[in-house]
Amino acid sequence: MKDRKIVLVGTGFVGMSMAYSFLTTGGIDELVLVDVDEEKAIGETMDLQHGLPYARNKLVIKAGGYEECADAEMVVITAGTAQRPGQTRLDMTAVNTKIMKSITENIMASGFDGILLIASNPVDLMTYVAQQVSGLPKNRVIGSGTILDTARLRYLMSEYLGISTSNIHAYIMGEHGDSSFVPWTHAYIGCKNLLEMLDENHRDLQDLNEIYHQVQQAAYEIINRKKSTYYGIGLSLNRLVRAILDDEHVILTVSCYQNQEYGQEDLYIGVPAIITRAGVETIIKLKLNEVDQGKFDASCETLKEIIHSTIKPILG
Amino acid sequence: MKDRKIVLVGTGFVGMSMAYSFLTTGGIDELVLVDVDEEKAIGETMDLQHGLPYARNKLVIKAGGYEECADAEMVVITAGTAQRPGQTRLDMTAVNTKIMKSITENIMASGFDGILLIASNPVDLMTYVAQQVSGLPKNRVIGSGTILDTARLRYLMSEYLGISTSNIHAYIMGEHGDSSFVPWTHAYIGCKNLLEMLDENHRDLQDLNEIYHQVQQAAYEIINRKKSTYYGIGLSLNRLVRAILDDEHVILTVSCYQNQEYGQEDLYIGVPAIITRAGVETIIKLKLNEVDQGKFDASCETLKEIIHSTIKPILG
Amino acid sequence: MKDRKIVLVGTGFVGMSMAYSFLTTGGIDELVLVDVDEEKAIGETMDLQHGLPYARNKLVIKAGGYEECADAEMVVITAGTAQRPGQTRLDMTAVNTKIMKSITENIMASGFDGILLIASNPVDLMTYVAQQVSGLPKNRVIGSGTILDTARLRYLMSEYLGISTSNIHAYIMGEHGDSSFVPWTHAYIGCKNLLEMLDENHRDLQDLNEIYHQVQQAAYEIINRKKSTYYGIGLSLNRLVRAILDDEHVILTVSCYQNQEYGQEDLYIGVPAIITRAGVETIIKLKLNEVDQGKFDASCETLKEIIHSTIKPILG
Amino acid sequence: MKDRKIVLVGTGFVGMSMAYSFLTTGGIDELVLVDVDEEKAIGETMDLQHGLPYARNKLVIKAGGYEECADAEMVVITAGTAQRPGQTRLDMTAVNTKIMKSITENIMASGFDGILLIASNPVDLMTYVAQQVSGLPKNRVIGSGTILDTARLRYLMSEYLGISTSNIHAYIMGEHGDSSFVPWTHAYIGCKNLLEMLDENHRDLQDLNEIYHQVQQAAYEIINRKKSTYYGIGLSLNRLVRAILDDEHVILTVSCYQNQEYGQEDLYIGVPAIITRAGVETIIKLKLNEVDQGKFDASCETLKEIIHSTIKPILG
Ligand SMILES: NC(=O)c1ccc[n+]([C@@H]2O[C@H](COP(=O)([O-])OP(=O)(O)OC[C@H]3O[C@@H](n4cnc5c(N)ncnc54)[C@H](O)[C@@H]3O)[C@@H](O)[C@H]2O)c1
Ligand SMILES: NC(=O)c1ccc[n+]([C@@H]2O[C@H](COP(=O)([O-])OP(=O)(O)OC[C@H]3O[C@@H](n4cnc5c(N)ncnc54)[C@H](O)[C@@H]3O)[C@@H](O)[C@H]2O)c1
Ligand SMILES: NC(=O)c1ccc[n+]([C@@H]2O[C@H](COP(=O)([O-])OP(=O)(O)OC[C@H]3O[C@@H](n4cnc5c(N)ncnc54)[C@H](O)[C@@H]3O)[C@@H](O)[C@H]2O)c1
Ligand SMILES: NC(=O)c1ccc[n+]([C@@H]2O[C@H](COP(=O)([O-])OP(=O)(O)OC[C@H]3O[C@@H](n4cnc5c(N)ncnc54)[C@H](O)[C@@H]3O)[C@@H](O)[C@H]2O)c1
Repeated sequence: MKDRKIVLVGTGFVGMSMAYSFLTTGGIDELVLVDVDEEKAIGETMDLQHGLPYARNKLVIKAGGYEECADAEMVVITAGTAQRPGQTRLDMTAVNTKIMKSITENIMASGFDGILLIASNPVDLMTYVAQQVSGLPKNRVIGSGTILDTARLRYLMSEYLGISTSNIHAYIMGEHGDSSFVPWTHAYIGCKNLLEMLDENHRDLQDLNEIYHQVQQAAYEIINRKKSTYYGIGLSLNRLVRAILDDEHVILTVSCYQNQEYGQEDLYIGVPAIITRAGVETIIKLKLNEVDQGKFDASCETLKEIIHSTIKPILG
Repeated sequence: MKDRKIVLVGTGFVGMSMAYSFLTTGGIDELVLVDVDEEKAIGETMDLQHGLPYARNKLVIKAGGYEECADAEMVVITAGTAQRPGQTRLDMTAVNTKIMKSITENIMASGFDGILLIASNPVDLMTYVAQQVSGLPKNRVIGSGTILDTARLRYLMSEYLGISTSNIHAYIMGEHGDSSFVPWTHAYIGCKNLLEMLDENHRDLQDLNEIYHQVQQAAYEIINRKKSTYYGIGLSLNRLVRAILDDEHVILTVSCYQNQEYGQEDLYIGVPAIITRAGVETIIKLKLNEVDQGKFDASCETLKEIIHSTIKPILG
Repeated sequence: MKDRKIVLVGTGFVGMSMAYSFLTTGGIDELVLVDVDEEKAIGETMDLQHGLPYARNKLVIKAGGYEECADAEMVVITAGTAQRPGQTRLDMTAVNTKIMKSITENIMASGFDGILLIASNPVDLMTYVAQQVSGLPKNRVIGSGTILDTARLRYLMSEYLGISTSNIHAYIMGEHGDSSFVPWTHAYIGCKNLLEMLDENHRDLQDLNEIYHQVQQAAYEIINRKKSTYYGIGLSLNRLVRAILDDEHVILTVSCYQNQEYGQEDLYIGVPAIITRAGVETIIKLKLNEVDQGKFDASCETLKEIIHSTIKPILG
Repeated sequence: MKDRKIVLVGTGFVGMSMAYSFLTTGGIDELVLVDVDEEKAIGETMDLQHGLPYARNKLVIKAGGYEECADAEMVVITAGTAQRPGQTRLDMTAVNTKIMKSITENIMASGFDGILLIASNPVDLMTYVAQQVSGLPKNRVIGSGTILDTARLRYLMSEYLGISTSNIHAYIMGEHGDSSFVPWTHAYIGCKNLLEMLDENHRDLQDLNEIYHQVQQAAYEIINRKKSTYYGIGLSLNRLVRAILDDEHVILTVSCYQNQEYGQEDLYIGVPAIITRAGVETIIKLKLNEVDQGKFDASCETLKEIIHSTIKPILG
C-alpha cells in the first residue's frame, strides 16, 4: 500500500473542492481522480495540475480508473447527484444506492484494502451501503456524517459569542440532515459550560435554537443561492482525510457504525469518535438526557426504516 | 486603509476558487464578496464561512457592496463572462468593457485608493480599461496576464524533464491568449541553460514547441471537458495577492502598462515584473531575439487595434 | 503604527526560539532584534536571515535599537536571566525588576503605543512591572502566564488518554511556577467531562495529580538536562503573538491584570482570557470550587507579598 | 520501513534547530532523538513535546537508541563538535572521523536501509566517512554541502538587488568552507543573466565578490557573536529532509559522491543535484569556465589530500 495515496471517486463540486484544497494544505502525496465521466476527470486533473507550481508541497495528480485503488491508503467517494432545490436528502436514496453499490464493487475488485470515506448523500445510508458491499471492517468505512453540520454550528456560535471557533466545543449528532440535534448540556466554551455562560450574560436558550435552525437550513439556503454547496464540505473532507493520514486521534463527528454505544445497532449515524490512521478507533459516549436520546432514537428509526424498505432490497 | 483587507468583485468560479484558497493559505485578514447577483454573493459567503473552523487562520468573510472598497488594500475583479466553447477571448471584449467600466466606476466612487488586480478576460484589455477608468497610477492596476500560462508551462516542462517546477525558470510573455510566446533562449533549469540541457540529453526543440502548444490549447481543452477553467487561475491569483500584500519583490509575469520597456507603449500586456506592496515596481527587460520581439510586437498590435476600434469608443 | 511589525527585546534562547519559529509559521511582516549585547543581536539576526530563503513568507529581520519600537504593533520582552539549576523563579525577582523597569522605559521613550508581551521570569511579576512602568492600558500588557504550563498539561494528558491535544480542554491557572493548579472539575475531553471519562475507564484521579506534578516539575527536569527551557515557550509565544495579530478571539491562559474577576485585584496572574488584536478582551470566569479558589488566593498572596516587599520599593 | 520516520543523531544546536522547525513545517510523522549524552536527548525531547499542542501537524517525538534506526526512512547526523572561534573546519577532521565512524557503525548495526544525511563538519569529509563505513549506495548518503552557503548567498544578493530570494538563481559550489566558489556566469535573476543585469544597472562585479566574501566569512562572523551557527543550517536541513521525503526532484547544492561529472572522483563535494525520495538522482553538470574549474579542482585536491592523510588511516 502506498502511504498518503488517495483516490477520489466523483469529480463534482464536492470532490473537487476537497481535491483543490490539498494543493494548499498538503498532507497527501498522490491524488487520483476517477469519474464515470472520464473526460471530466481529465479536465479537472489538468485544471488542478496548473495550480501545482503554486502548491504547498509536491503532489502527484492524475486521472485514472479503479485499478488505482489497489495500492491507495484511502478512497473518498463523492459521486452522486447533488441535492437540488426542493429535494430532500432522503429522496436521493434509491438512485444513489445503486451508484454506491457499483462504485464500491469496482473499488473492491482492485484489491483495495484501505479506508473508505463517503460524502455522497444521504451520507449515513450511503456509508452503510459501502460497508455492506465492501465487507471492509466497519471502523474502516466512515461517512462524513455531521462534520459539516458541526462546523456550521461552531461558526455561527463563534459569531454569536465573539469567541474563536477553536474554543466552541459543541457537537451536532444524528443523521446528516433533517433529524439531527445538538446535545446542548454537553456544550462548552473553552472550559466553561455554555448554558452557564448564557445565563451569566443574560442571553437566551432561544438564541441557540435559532442558531441550530440556521444550521439545519444552511444547505437549503445555499442551494437556493448557488445551486449546490461544496466549499464547507470540501474543507471538512480535507480535515477528515488529514486526521486519518496523520493519525491524529482527534474527535470528529462522523458517521460511524453503531454497536450499542448509544443503544442502537446495525446502522451508520453521526456521533463523536476518535479518528486515527486505522479509521474510527472509539466512539465517545456522552450521557444524553431523555429528550436528546429521544431525538437520536428517532433519527435512527428514520434511517433504519429506509435501510429495510429501500436499501436491503437493492443490496439483495 | 485596512491592511490585508481585500474585496472580490465577481463571485463566479474563478473568483471563488481564489477566495476559497485563502482559507487554507492564509495571508489576508478580511475578504468581502461583491457580485451583481447579490444572492449568489451571500450563498458563496455562507459556503465559505462554514469552512472557517478548518481554516489556517482567522479570517473575516462577508458579502457586501462597493462601499466596502473604501478601506480595502486591494480589489480583485473576476466578474465577467467565462469563456465558452468556441469563443475566443477577444470575442468577449465589447461586452466586458462595459461591465469593467461600470465596476471600476463603482469601486472608485467608494474612495478606493489601493491596488486593483484584474483577471476578467480578455485580461490585458480589461486591465487597460480599469486603469483608464479608475485613473489610478499605472503600477497599481495589474492584470493576471500570463501568470497562469507560465504556471502551465512550468508544470508541463517539469513533467517532461522530471525536475521540480521550482527549478523551471521560463516565462510566457505577451497577450494572455492566442498570441503569447516563450523566449526559449531565456529559459533555465536551475542555473543551466535549457537549450544546452536539451542538447546534452539529445532531446529536441520540437518537444518544447509541443509543450508550448499544449499550454496555448490548455484553456480550450479544459473548457471542452468541464465548461470553464478556474483552479489553476484561482491559485495563481492567490499567489499574486500574497506577493503584493507580503511585499515579496518577486518576479511574476503579469499584465503591466508598457512604457517602452519592450519598445511599446500605451497598452497592458504580460511581461516579467517585480511585484511589491506598491504594485508593479520594475519591468524586467530581457533582450529578446528578433523572432521573439516580432511575436511581442504582433501581440501588441492585436491588442492596440482592439483598444482603438472597440475600447476607446466605449470609454469615450 | 506598522501592522505586524514586532520588536523582540532579549535575544536569548527563549526569544530566539520564538523568533526562529516565525520563519516557518509566518504571521508577521517585520521582526527587530534588540539586546543589551548588541553584537549578539547582530549575530542572531545574521543566523536567522540565512534561513530566509527557506522561510514560509517574506519577512524583514534586522537588529536595532529601542527607536524601532516607535511604530511596532507589538513588543515582546524575553530579556533576563534564565532559570538556573536550583534557583526558583521568585529568586530572580529583584534583579529582573530593575532590568524590566529600564527596558520598559526605553520602549516607552520611543513613543511605543502597541501591545507589550512579557515572558521574562518571574513572569506574573515582570508583567506587573512592565504595566506599572509603561502606564499602558492594563489589557495591552500581557504576560505569557500559564500558557506553557497549560501546553505541557495538554501534551501529557493527550499521551495518557490517547486523544489529540486539540481535544484536551483543561487549564493551568495561577502563578507560572510553584503555586499553579488545575481546576479539574472544569476539564473536558471533547465535550465529555474528564472526571466522568476517567470514572468510566476505571482510571484514577491519582493519575491526574501525577500528571500535574510532572508539569510542575517539567522546567526543573529540562533545566537539569539541557540547562534551560526554550522550545516549548518559544512556540507558545509564537502562538500568542499570532492570536493577537490575527485578532483570533481565542481563549488562552495568560497573565492578566485582575479586577475582581476571581476575587483579587492589583496583580497579574494566569487565568483564561479572550485574546484579540486589542489585547486581553475578557477574562473567562470559571466557578472555582472552594479548594481551587483557595489555591488561587494562595497563589495571589504569594505574588502580592513580593509586589509589596520587593517590587514597589524598586519602582518607587 | 516506516515512511516519514526520521532519527536525529546529535541533539546539539544544529540538530535541535532542525528538529524544532519540523513542529511548524510538518512533513514528518516521527522523530527520534539520539545523543551520546542520553539525558540531553531526553531533556530536548521534553522541551519539544511541550510545543506539540501548537504544532502544525501530529508528530511523534521521542528519545531513543540506535535500534530506532531499524525502520527509519532517514537518519540525520549532526553530532560532533561545533566550530569554535579560531578553528577551521578542517581542524576538526580527525576527531570527528572517529565519532562519525562509530555513529555510522551503530546505525548500520540496527539494520538501517534508508537515506543518511550528514551535517557534521567538515561535512564533505564526514559524508565520505559515513558512506565508506555504511556501505550504503552512494546516492543514499548525502552531505548538507553548500546548501547553507547557497542560502546565504541568495539572501545577500536578494538584499543587494531588491529582488526576492526565490528569483535569485546562483549556486555556491565546492567544499563547504574556505575553498568554495560561485560560478557567476551561471547566475540568473529570474530569467535574466546576472552579469548582464549588473551591467545595465551600472553595478560592479566587485560588489558580487564582496557578497561572496561575506558568505565565506558568515560562519566566523556569527560564531564570534553567538558562539555557533544553527538557525540557518537548521532550516536548510529541514528543507533537504522535506525535499527527499516529498520526492521533490528539486535542485539543491549538496555534498554528492563524484563520478567524473566535474572531472573528479572518489570524494564528496558540493554540487547542484536533483534530490528525490531515492536520494541524489542526478548531478547537474554546468560548463565551468577555466577559472571556476580550477577552483573546483583545488577544492577537491584539498579534500582528497585529507582523505588520504587523515581519514583512510583511521578507516583502515
Ligand atoms: N456529506 C455532506 O455533508 C455533503 C455536502 C454537500 C454535498 N454532498 C453530496 O455530495 C455528492 C456530490 O455532490 P456534488 O455537488 O459534487 O455533485 P456533482 O453533481 O457536482 O458531482 C457528482 C459527480 O459524480 C459523478 N458520478 C455520478 N455517478 C458516478 C458513478 N457511478 N461513478 C463515478 N462518478 C459518478 C458525476 O459524473 C459528477 O462528476 C452529492 O451526493 C451531494 O448530496 C454531501
Ligand atoms: N486571466 C485568466 O487567466 C483567466 C482564467 C480563467 C478565466 N478568466 C476569466 O475570469 C472571468 C470570470 O470567469 P468565471 O469562470 O468565474 O465566470 P462565471 O460566469 O462563473 O462568474 C462570473 C461572475 O461575475 C458576475 N458578474 C457579471 N457581471 C457583473 C457585474 N457587472 N458586477 C459584478 N459581478 C458581475 C456574475 O454574476 C458571476 O458571478 C471571465 O472573464 C473569464 O474569462 C480569466
Ligand atoms: N514564561 C515562561 O514560561 C518562560 C519559560 C522559559 C524561560 N522564561 C524566562 O525567559 C527569560 C529569558 O530566558 P533565556 O533562556 O532566553 O535567557 P538567556 O540568558 O538565554 O537570554 C537572555 C537575554 O536577555 C538579554 N538581556 C539581559 N539584560 C538585558 C537588558 N537589560 N536589555 C536587553 N536585553 C537584555 C541577554 O543579553 C540575553 O541575550 C528568563 O527570564 C527565563 O526565566 C520564561
Ligand atoms: N553543514 C553545515 O553547514 C554546518 C553548519 C553549522 C554547524 N555544522 C556542524 O554541525 C555539527 C553540530 O554542531 P552543533 O552546533 O549542534 O554542536 P553542539 O556541540 O551543540 O552539539 C553536538 C552534539 O553532538 C553530540 N555528540 C557528540 N558526540 C556524539 C556521538 N558520538 N554520538 C552521538 N552524539 C554525539 C553532543 O552530545 C552534542 O549534543 C558540528 O560538526 C558543526 O560544525 C555544520
